[in-house]
Amino acid sequence: MKNQEVSNLKKKFNRGDVFSDKCPSREILKHITSKWGLLILLALSDGEIKRFSELKRTINGVSEKMLSQTLKVLEDDKLVIRKSYDVVPPYVEYSLTDLGLDLSKQVIGLTSWIEDNLMKIL
Amino acid sequence: MKNQEVSNLKKKFNRGDVFSDKCPSREILKHITSKWGLLILLALSDGEIKRFSELKRTINGVSEKMLSQTLKVLEDDKLVIRKSYDVVPPYVEYSLTDLGLDLSKQVIGLTSWIEDNLMKIL
Repeated sequence: MKNQEVSNLKKKFNRGDVFSDKCPSREILKHITSKWGLLILLALSDGEIKRFSELKRTINGVSEKMLSQTLKVLEDDKLVIRKSYDVVPPYVEYSLTDLGLDLSKQVIGLTSWIEDNLMKIL
Repeated sequence: MKNQEVSNLKKKFNRGDVFSDKCPSREILKHITSKWGLLILLALSDGEIKRFSELKRTINGVSEKMLSQTLKVLEDDKLVIRKSYDVVPPYVEYSLTDLGLDLSKQVIGLTSWIEDNLMKIL
């Protein structure tokens, strides 16, 4: 096989394709662009560690159940780090991984665009 | 009122805030980041005019019903232009508005990130 062919094959299998309904990138896209997923990534995009209660306060309207479910999904996607301390009352902190922090730049781009252009759309 | 205060007020009322559940930007965010909304914006991001059937072929898995519903939502948001020709069989074309084209850059940023980093997540 020629080098070019090997390179094309490598590219084909190492990169996702969101247009294909068989590609797992569709599922990741769903996690990341879910309403709460997107707002969690945005709330943590400053790189700071935040408590569960702090995230709940920042993201208006999210229930404790949806917040903790969505954080778990993002943790499984290696985007969020969860750290819990064995104290009473329980103390849990969240922050972005390096991968999550890199992704959050794209999320800032998209959400800032919407905030900036809202009046043109409405 | 000081100039700075006026400027802050203007900023406050002219810009959306996705963290607020009362801000209409939440609804727009929902349209844009819906699975099919995002893929339509991406499919049209090259600025070309595309036929309905062409969009359906590009976006694997979308039904005619969901495709036409989502295109209508994006049209109402002033992101997509629909042009229909009074011929038999009906001929309908879609393209992005300038606003939609500007937004599609952010969509490319986000979806390319996911495609590029898929293997790190899986």
